[in-house]
Amino acid sequence: MSSVASRQNSDALRLLNIEFSQMAALVETQLGEAISAFERRDVAAAQMVVKNDPRIDAMQHRIDAMVLKTLVEKAPDEQELRGLLGTMKVAAELERIGDLAKNVAKRTQVVSRENPPRAHGGVARMGRASMRQISDILNAYSARNLEAAKAVWGGDDDLDELYNSVFKEIMLAMMEDSRQITAGTHLAFIAKNFERVGDHATNIAEVLHFLVTGSQFGGARPKGDDTSMAIISPKNSNVE
Amino acid sequence: MSSVASRQNSDALRLLNIEFSQMAALVETQLGEAISAFERRDVAAAQMVVKNDPRIDAMQHRIDAMVLKTLVEKAPDEQELRGLLGTMKVAAELERIGDLAKNVAKRTQVVSRENPPRAHGGVARMGRASMRQISDILNAYSARNLEAAKAVWGGDDDLDELYNSVFKEIMLAMMEDSRQITAGTHLAFIAKNFERVGDHATNIAEVLHFLVTGSQFGGARPKGDDTSMAIISPKNSNVE
Repeated sequence: MSSVASRQNSDALRLLNIEFSQMAALVETQLGEAISAFERRDVAAAQMVVKNDPRIDAMQHRIDAMVLKTLVEKAPDEQELRGLLGTMKVAAELERIGDLAKNVAKRTQVVSRENPPRAHGGVARMGRASMRQISDILNAYSARNLEAAKAVWGGDDDLDELYNSVFKEIMLAMMEDSRQITAGTHLAFIAKNFERVGDHATNIAEVLHFLVTGSQFGGARPKGDDTSMAIISPKNSNVE
Repeated sequence: MSSVASRQNSDALRLLNIEFSQMAALVETQLGEAISAFERRDVAAAQMVVKNDPRIDAMQHRIDAMVLKTLVEKAPDEQELRGLLGTMKVAAELERIGDLAKNVAKRTQVVSRENPPRAHGGVARMGRASMRQISDILNAYSARNLEAAKAVWGGDDDLDELYNSVFKEIMLAMMEDSRQITAGTHLAFIAKNFERVGDHATNIAEVLHFLVTGSQFGGARPKGDDTSMAIISPKNSNVE
């Protein structure tokens, strides 16, 4: 390859990395803002999150196009290829985290119109936990730190447990007071969104593992919310 | 490229296409079985869907590895590159559709233990509509038929509308009879899962568009469920 082509190529990679970092930063901001709007029941802040989401989608499209262009213009070696595919995959995860932040913000506008439902604090706690997972995995990803990524991968269980206990609390609140049903249902979806943010952190950990080692994590994925599948009744809060 | 390398390469592509077709077929089967188990309230069939899901995850991992191998072993031209990245992206969508089918199957085991909730029929209708979207888009994708893909892309609105009306029905049923709250909440999640299946069909349409034309669909995505954000009360079923 001529030195001109090589310089062009490293410029393309540098631009790709800048775009990716900006996308990661915006998604982190959007998720943080959505959580904070939910906590403070701040409808105007929630609206801003919804309004900003298309910027994330546009960034993903640009990243896909840049990856394709880089692949077309040079024949990258295997390590570079893994990096390029990894960037594309993580950008897809980030786009979905952005969607979840937007959905939390939309539902925040609904639940903020009603009295704070009982499980509000528990769901906010889940939000902050999911935010930590995302911050940790994005730091691990940019440092290519596999140990830190494994910690995030393992930490997803805690978020699932929190989800299961919050889900039960929401169900019981709705059973005891039917005026909480609308807000409670949206709260259940918000909680589920935070649980899914955790799943996306897990996915990013897996992409990093593949990128560094060329193989998948061993063992079953720490993903699931089976106990929220239990039947909950107001008389018998002892869950099957 | 030598004719040996070229033959090896076309063998690798052929194997990749076979794996991809098998993955698409399995995901369609799993979604169909999950819907049918939900309709018939068949717990055993639902358990089978959950049991089969890891096969889909394994297929996605194999496809990723095969795409990477093909990229490493040859320098594909731009059209081939788009095809390879498209395969990887659609495989990721398929894996998520498989997850949604599994989640429907898990929740089916819960709702089948209780009396059929009122909106059961509406949710089943959503399931069949989402199945049609997936079948149509997979046919369009394998035929590289952009017109058919556009029809699927546009058809997502219908599924969103169906979701909004079913969501209201579920809320009202829970408000009128608190014994429907557990089943109703799971039903709301099942309905949301079907709505998300439709979103994945839309995503696949977008991948095909990018693959064929190298550009994104114009205009805003037909994606969203805003009216389910309305406040619903049993006294005033007139939705804001």
